[in-house]
Amino acid sequence: MEHEAIVPVILCGGSGTRLWPVSRDSMPKQFVSLTGTGRSTFQDTVLRVRGHGFMKPVVLTHGDFRFIVLEQLREIGVEADIVLEPERRDSAPAVAVAALVAQQRGAIALVVAADHVVDDADAFRRDCQAAVPAARSGALGDGRIMLLGIAPDHPSTAYGYIAVGEPIGPDRAAGSFEVARFIEKPDAARAAELIEEGCVWNSGNFLFDPAVMIEELEQGAASVLDGARGALEGAMRDLDFLRLDAASFGKAPRISIDYAVMEKTRRAGVVRARFGWSDIGAWNALYDVLPRDASGNVVEGPVSLAGTKGSLVRADGILTAVVGISDAVVVATPDAVLVTTRERAGEVKGLVAQLHSEGREEAGQHRRIHRPWGWYQRIDIGTRFQVKQICVHPGARLSLQKHFHRAEHWIVVQGTAEVTIDATVKLVHENEAAYLPIGCTHRLHNPGKIELRLIEVQVGSYTGEDDIVRVEDVYART
Amino acid sequence: MEHEAIVPVILCGGSGTRLWPVSRDSMPKQFVSLTGTGRSTFQDTVLRVRGHGFMKPVVLTHGDFRFIVLEQLREIGVEADIVLEPERRDSAPAVAVAALVAQQRGAIALVVAADHVVDDADAFRRDCQAAVPAARSGALGDGRIMLLGIAPDHPSTAYGYIAVGEPIGPDRAAGSFEVARFIEKPDAARAAELIEEGCVWNSGNFLFDPAVMIEELEQGAASVLDGARGALEGAMRDLDFLRLDAASFGKAPRISIDYAVMEKTRRAGVVRARFGWSDIGAWNALYDVLPRDASGNVVEGPVSLAGTKGSLVRADGILTAVVGISDAVVVATPDAVLVTTRERAGEVKGLVAQLHSEGREEAGQHRRIHRPWGWYQRIDIGTRFQVKQICVHPGARLSLQKHFHRAEHWIVVQGTAEVTIDATVKLVHENEAAYLPIGCTHRLHNPGKIELRLIEVQVGSYTGEDDIVRVEDVYART
Repeated sequence: MEHEAIVPVILCGGSGTRLWPVSRDSMPKQFVSLTGTGRSTFQDTVLRVRGHGFMKPVVLTHGDFRFIVLEQLREIGVEADIVLEPERRDSAPAVAVAALVAQQRGAIALVVAADHVVDDADAFRRDCQAAVPAARSGALGDGRIMLLGIAPDHPSTAYGYIAVGEPIGPDRAAGSFEVARFIEKPDAARAAELIEEGCVWNSGNFLFDPAVMIEELEQGAASVLDGARGALEGAMRDLDFLRLDAASFGKAPRISIDYAVMEKTRRAGVVRARFGWSDIGAWNALYDVLPRDASGNVVEGPVSLAGTKGSLVRADGILTAVVGISDAVVVATPDAVLVTTRERAGEVKGLVAQLHSEGREEAGQHRRIHRPWGWYQRIDIGTRFQVKQICVHPGARLSLQKHFHRAEHWIVVQGTAEVTIDATVKLVHENEAAYLPIGCTHRLHNPGKIELRLIEVQVGSYTGEDDIVRVEDVYART
Repeated sequence: MEHEAIVPVILCGGSGTRLWPVSRDSMPKQFVSLTGTGRSTFQDTVLRVRGHGFMKPVVLTHGDFRFIVLEQLREIGVEADIVLEPERRDSAPAVAVAALVAQQRGAIALVVAADHVVDDADAFRRDCQAAVPAARSGALGDGRIMLLGIAPDHPSTAYGYIAVGEPIGPDRAAGSFEVARFIEKPDAARAAELIEEGCVWNSGNFLFDPAVMIEELEQGAASVLDGARGALEGAMRDLDFLRLDAASFGKAPRISIDYAVMEKTRRAGVVRARFGWSDIGAWNALYDVLPRDASGNVVEGPVSLAGTKGSLVRADGILTAVVGISDAVVVATPDAVLVTTRERAGEVKGLVAQLHSEGREEAGQHRRIHRPWGWYQRIDIGTRFQVKQICVHPGARLSLQKHFHRAEHWIVVQGTAEVTIDATVKLVHENEAAYLPIGCTHRLHNPGKIELRLIEVQVGSYTGEDDIVRVEDVYART
């Protein structure tokens, strides 16, 4: 089979609260190591859409995540075009942007979510290639929007289903079928019937000729297309990112691609995928895809179990002991613990909404906060003081800043810091300290080749993050 | 009724692993705030045995806990004689020491555990006084060893039972009875029968004339008595403590007072106590004594519940969410989490043994380590560095010490430090720092009237606690 150029567009703007407390707004599930590969599902997704026939990927994400995306791409050594959505507006505007970008590249678009798990990357790529002929429009093609349909391995109530119709074209594109109809998330009994009838799961990942998607959007959701077009035309290059124009993008209605196009179009097709798949939409779904021990437990981190069966226990650096419980979900992080059952794991989303409404910082914020220059993490707080560990990447520099209510002591514990205090610039080495009096203008820079780590002790009447005046910032945050 | 002088002897040498992770070897349950009073059960116990007729209490504890005892007594403003056992040797040697000390004081001894909960301190004191006539030996007394028997409120399988016999002396000591027999921990069905028969729980707290206990020990466990006598005769005064002689005490066999005396003696009596009581021997027992909300949950700390019933959820400073679980026990601390059920809570002791055998530091050590001068707590650790918060009580001073492998930076965040570095002594105030190079001889002293808090950043090739040479120590630890 001849290969067709495919441009992968990876959607990773989601917030993933259903895997709280590991996944939070400040670092949602697609960026977290969840599946035992040592990489995030975003990284695994990027690595999955590479190889012969796949072009440089496009990553469509939210501005808040731009530096996480950049760092995670650097970790796996992959280059991508990063397009920033000014705000979250559901999937149709994102797919419209994907179609317009793919049209510029003259390639078939493959739109994939960054937070899905696939058990066989080779099979995934083969299935994508197999869908291309049916997706191709023009003289030789049918111009279908080709969905990747997944063979169900259990009667899931968490996924939509697709009734598979007739084969598309008898002489080519073997394995491509018409979509007879879409079925929304069913109850368990109905799900079993659908599987009996040969239906497949709708993975929400799909392949299309940009011209076809643009036509369909024009007919079904013209304002979405207009917004996306304007957002791209007005886009600004900002460091390594392409920042979509906010005013235009903001005019695109909030609507999913399912409602805007897929459920109306007569041009939907589906391939019967030959890989295992999950959207790990909740902790029980993660349990389902991970290897279990003899007692049916999935364990990660410093965990001790006694008389425990069928449970998912994840401990991020905090000893977690579970005694005499079955089918539980226990997730412990340094500042938040979740205990539920596999059956009730779907309620976590509601729990997080409740925690937000109670004003709990842990609902959305991780303890470690990522910044363009590295990260910081609070390690202690008390009356009139706070202590942080700060990590600065090689070459990176924080903004030139000052505080009105706190002095800071910096003790370098790894690497070398270049510290600017008012008019003075000095190097501070491991086991050396610098003192920043209240009100001084200061900057921290890592001039070295290894990560700079330092302990910051803040002392003052107020140690909140908002006591900061940014005088100058290489990351354009002033 | 006439009052008789009673000397309370509080036994608080236990290690209480069944309430892990809140209770650990380094700070066992009797010293922890568990019952919502804001005080430890040790403190509540000390306050319970005060008032008319009660002499200055004797606290019998282990050397490891001496400074915790001292500080907790200071917190509640009570003076006590503190006797230190050189090692743990079960209850008979401790009771023998109690008897000998009470004999010196010429008073009736009341031996109570430091980790029990009593719901009515007045009733407790009245019941103790009511037992005195039957305990008194000589012309007017029977010389009984009087147990406090508790009216069961459920068929507990965790307690021993006492079958109550005939009243002792028709004309006095109303409410004092013979012990017909002792019954070891029964199963639930037998427990229900015992309650039907009018049996009471054996609280393990008892009152006696020292001469009687000494006679009984002579007959039943002479080597226990000999060891205790030698330990007291050879005892050394050490700061605020009376340190029993280790060689003599070590000769006393490890045996409980139940086996050594109570189950053999014909002089056991019992009062039907009129207070509610628990030994809070496990998390389910603690659940039983604490107030519940409308869903039957006992909650402490930053906890969020949804669809959870009949559960004990305790969060020590770490947000803990429980969704859709019944009859659970969830206990979260900054470095260890326990999840079990009320039914299986008794297995925690075995879990802790397993964690010890796996070499897990969290099995026995809290993150906050108490010292005679205050406490310290690790707040961060990494390659070649460690960060601690240190608290020094007013007037206290650490040992004069040095380290071979680490330098230290001290940043004072509250109070004032007097810092000795080699030949130099200087005052370091809030928001000031001191640097201690590797190998320097140094000392930290709090000369002020409020607690001194500082952040210590250690940098070096090895930051273990054992890299310390104590040159001089006011707490005799060199």
